Amino acid sequence: MKAPICVFACLALLLCQGVAQTEAIAPAKTNETGIVRVLVAYYSLTGNTEKMAEGVVEGVKRIRGAAANLKKADEVTKQDLEDADGIIMGCPAYYGTIPGRMKVVIDDWSWKLKVDFTDKVGGAFSTGGGQAGGKEFVAVSLVMFMLNNRMVVAGPLYRNDKTGSIWGEVGATAMTGPLDPGVGEGELDGARRLGERVARLAAKMKAAATLAKEQP
Amino acid sequence: MKAPICVFACLALLLCQGVAQTEAIAPAKTNETGIVRVLVAYYSLTGNTEKMAEGVVEGVKRIRGAAANLKKADEVTKQDLEDADGIIMGCPAYYGTIPGRMKVVIDDWSWKLKVDFTDKVGGAFSTGGGQAGGKEFVAVSLVMFMLNNRMVVAGPLYRNDKTGSIWGEVGATAMTGPLDPGVGEGELDGARRLGERVARLAAKMKAAATLAKEQP
Amino acid sequence: MKAPICVFACLALLLCQGVAQTEAIAPAKTNETGIVRVLVAYYSLTGNTEKMAEGVVEGVKRIRGAAANLKKADEVTKQDLEDADGIIMGCPAYYGTIPGRMKVVIDDWSWKLKVDFTDKVGGAFSTGGGQAGGKEFVAVSLVMFMLNNRMVVAGPLYRNDKTGSIWGEVGATAMTGPLDPGVGEGELDGARRLGERVARLAAKMKAAATLAKEQP
Amino acid sequence: MKAPICVFACLALLLCQGVAQTEAIAPAKTNETGIVRVLVAYYSLTGNTEKMAEGVVEGVKRIRGAAANLKKADEVTKQDLEDADGIIMGCPAYYGTIPGRMKVVIDDWSWKLKVDFTDKVGGAFSTGGGQAGGKEFVAVSLVMFMLNNRMVVAGPLYRNDKTGSIWGEVGATAMTGPLDPGVGEGELDGARRLGERVARLAAKMKAAATLAKEQP
Repeated sequence: MKAPICVFACLALLLCQGVAQTEAIAPAKTNETGIVRVLVAYYSLTGNTEKMAEGVVEGVKRIRGAAANLKKADEVTKQDLEDADGIIMGCPAYYGTIPGRMKVVIDDWSWKLKVDFTDKVGGAFSTGGGQAGGKEFVAVSLVMFMLNNRMVVAGPLYRNDKTGSIWGEVGATAMTGPLDPGVGEGELDGARRLGERVARLAAKMKAAATLAKEQP
Repeated sequence: MKAPICVFACLALLLCQGVAQTEAIAPAKTNETGIVRVLVAYYSLTGNTEKMAEGVVEGVKRIRGAAANLKKADEVTKQDLEDADGIIMGCPAYYGTIPGRMKVVIDDWSWKLKVDFTDKVGGAFSTGGGQAGGKEFVAVSLVMFMLNNRMVVAGPLYRNDKTGSIWGEVGATAMTGPLDPGVGEGELDGARRLGERVARLAAKMKAAATLAKEQP
Repeated sequence: MKAPICVFACLALLLCQGVAQTEAIAPAKTNETGIVRVLVAYYSLTGNTEKMAEGVVEGVKRIRGAAANLKKADEVTKQDLEDADGIIMGCPAYYGTIPGRMKVVIDDWSWKLKVDFTDKVGGAFSTGGGQAGGKEFVAVSLVMFMLNNRMVVAGPLYRNDKTGSIWGEVGATAMTGPLDPGVGEGELDGARRLGERVARLAAKMKAAATLAKEQP
Repeated sequence: MKAPICVFACLALLLCQGVAQTEAIAPAKTNETGIVRVLVAYYSLTGNTEKMAEGVVEGVKRIRGAAANLKKADEVTKQDLEDADGIIMGCPAYYGTIPGRMKVVIDDWSWKLKVDFTDKVGGAFSTGGGQAGGKEFVAVSLVMFMLNNRMVVAGPLYRNDKTGSIWGEVGATAMTGPLDPGVGEGELDGARRLGERVARLAAKMKAAATLAKEQP
């Protein structure tokens, strides 16, 4: 009987931490041996999406006990995917939609690697030139990919301190030209919020799953 | 110290039940005093979407401890929304998108009722005439509404028994004419799977949240 | 036989003008008795979308012979819709999707006013707070509404003078806070390009339709 | 002066034909030397999407003067694309979105082949298993690709003879399993309507463009 209680205590601490950190700004220390694993998989040609991916990783690390695994999508292994409690995916918009080079890779995660994504927590990020050049539609498309792969999906959470209003978004996006100077601080903030949200939810889901298993 | 253990045991039983029932077909007994509440809110003019809503309710009831609250969207109260651990929303496609009469109502849930939807589990269903008349896009639109309201989103889970392949979908949809006879058994099956999935996830999330609160 | 030739000459001049103006910046004089009519219908609560609508009107006026009819969506009449060769619609994003108040109005254009939109040229614009708060998805949703109402759809055209690259977008959008100061010059430029594109295409389509009718 | 009149007569006949045929069922004779060229480009693994592509071709041939060029997407040449007045694209849904193998190919049409798609008329078709497995979202995604490539987009037109109601759809789609027997007659009818609509609009656009050029 003692082991389960220990596990519960551990999980509860993790959850309390998670809940408290919901909208925190100061990053918590990362526990590389953390029990909650979040894979951040991206495709980047010019470095913009990679920058956003790094922001996402920072957000994941805000949750104590969460470890981020940052990988280029085409270097992700079956093990990476199976180990992950959360998977955050990002890419630029190519003609308003997911780049072929990204899609070929992720199609194979199910098709060839036969990974079962059921109940893994997903989140999406993207970059794009132009004003309505598809970066939001690409985030929606990644969400569609995740839902069709049996994942649970969430986006970054925001609060307007002046008005007190709160909201969420479909993912974290960055405008990258030609009118825009590139990935800015506000956009990185969105990336961090995405990482934090997915890590916190993955912790919650894992705690509940562990609880269900541990109980006699 | 005894109370928490009791709570854990209760939650763990609930979760074990939930996990085992993931893709079950036989409905479990409903516990009307269940601690996991799922609101099923719909807009229906001809009765097709209402039929799907009833299928969703059947699916919710497959999860022991889950109680479904079936309501027309415009009769949903602030209390209904705040009490809900999961919210499943459905409507027909009007010109490829959410009907105005539905959207006016749900806009006010945040705008006027000031409900905080953070971490509530959401799912979408829809009906539509024609072959690509927008029923899938309406499900995507409802998912967007939920993500922008800070919810966590999931869809129904499927398995092809012949091939063993598994997949998910963005929501449960039904084709309702003119080529189609109306809401069929396969479509109701989708509705039930949606209800079941959302109820199970809501149970998981609630267990984790309770665990975090109960722990000293 | 003389009448048709006269009509052809007139249409041809209109078209030549249209083609030459494709990406022009200087606005041409408006011909208020112009034979190509573009309705710009919008819903705006705070004035941001109205500002974009005015930009769209400026773009329409770049095409000689095109007349813009600027209206709040709920003041649009059956006559306005039937007279229009092109219809450009805009609204803010409410929770990632079309506002209910806008959708109720436009649903009735088909439902109650029984307007036949076949082959009218459509374009979409939108505004939205946040970074991925749905402004692009709202433009996609308006496009869906138009396609489901038998319209032909196009977006604004862009050219990067430095690189020579050219592209289009699903519509014209503007970010309106809280990080952003409101509708900026780059965003108004997008609105103008949208108005210009739709007006030019509506002129093309009308010329072809007139040609077909005039010919014995 | 005689040449233009001859051209106008020819174009006008083409247009009259096109307009009259809008919702015709009986296919017209194909004119292989037709001046309106419609490329039908598809990706198909199992043959379902290919079947739909053939239906689209039949629809194109309903418009006198329209010639269809049926090609697997990866066999399409720069010449095919530049010659086309209309481009109709189709593919299955892979995890709710465009298959990577299809997207890699079409990304290169702009990226490497440097084709200018401005004002070409586009249409989308797709196939998909499941009930809401992404076939509609894939059609939306192809529409996004086209709009971002400066095309003009339209979908198939329908009429319910019993009620007299008319509508359009985002594209032509087919459900292909496991509940469904495959591409059915109603779905092929949608494919034909798509081909017919795009060919008719491409004829209209071409007539107008020719008119503008021919006029002194």
